[in-house]
Amino acid sequence: MEGAEATRIMMGVNESTIKGYPHASISSRGAFDWTLQKIVRSNTSGFKLLFLHVQVPDEDGFDDMDSLYASPEDFKNMKHRDRTRGLHLLEYFVNRCHEIGVACEAWIKKGDPKEVICHEVKRVQPDLLVVGSRGLGPFQRVFVGTVSEFCQKHAECPVISIKRRADETPQDPVDD
Amino acid sequence: MEGAEATRIMMGVNESTIKGYPHASISSRGAFDWTLQKIVRSNTSGFKLLFLHVQVPDEDGFDDMDSLYASPEDFKNMKHRDRTRGLHLLEYFVNRCHEIGVACEAWIKKGDPKEVICHEVKRVQPDLLVVGSRGLGPFQRVFVGTVSEFCQKHAECPVISIKRRADETPQDPVDD
Repeated sequence: MEGAEATRIMMGVNESTIKGYPHASISSRGAFDWTLQKIVRSNTSGFKLLFLHVQVPDEDGFDDMDSLYASPEDFKNMKHRDRTRGLHLLEYFVNRCHEIGVACEAWIKKGDPKEVICHEVKRVQPDLLVVGSRGLGPFQRVFVGTVSEFCQKHAECPVISIKRRADETPQDPVDD
Repeated sequence: MEGAEATRIMMGVNESTIKGYPHASISSRGAFDWTLQKIVRSNTSGFKLLFLHVQVPDEDGFDDMDSLYASPEDFKNMKHRDRTRGLHLLEYFVNRCHEIGVACEAWIKKGDPKEVICHEVKRVQPDLLVVGSRGLGPFQRVFVGTVSEFCQKHAECPVISIKRRADETPQDPVDD
């Protein structure tokens, strides 16, 4: 049990549909808090968290996709351009990890979130993928799709899907 | 992070289809080993494992379902009758936990495994359910059903499904 490499947990995180960038969605924050409280606990050296944010492509040709953020300082050097584009969504998660003393890495990719997450799992080979989920009913799922269901079927590693707490669900449950 | 109650992980475990009782299936052992290596790690006081074995009912009216096993000694008092019926499948898991120093409980229920597991999740309210999976293809799944898919949809807690390692898959992948 001891002496092994840290357990690498990948987390797919996205922005709030209500507040926009740089705010993380309710389900992303919930999944992150759950992982810290229930899995990492006090064993901060036993885990490394890998935060992936997938941006849906837009028209302005933004393609600075190769930056890796691992400490609060990395965000200080971030260009103004990237800040306005919401890249500092990741800053929240990296700062929290830094405070607690859990190693982390964070990066951004562009594309269809569910496809990109599964592709990155294949590339990075984490021990576990954690994704937040809005816990929508079958009717709502048809229209908005669900990343978590797709990943549970297709990701090449074990997957935990963490549903939002009932008391954190916004008036319109499609919001997050 | 510290001072909180232990994270309670429920595991559904079953017997080997090849070797029968009291041997645990390949996927049950794999899910158990994964949980120890990747989640519990050295933090043995931070977790409690709850082993549930669901027996499919047979005709001899066996109904001694209320025993709880939490240490190797508990199995010494087991009646010969129960031993021949395979209840000591649970002994393997309880002994391993005892060696490592992880608190555990183990019990047996009768019924349809997927329904009973979800029912027990509702009753016991673990933080996480871990189930092993044979990782069958869609064609095989139609005929044998899969407990893990059902639980991922219906259990009222986060679920991890751990697939068997490729090098542990028997000649006939339906075996376990």
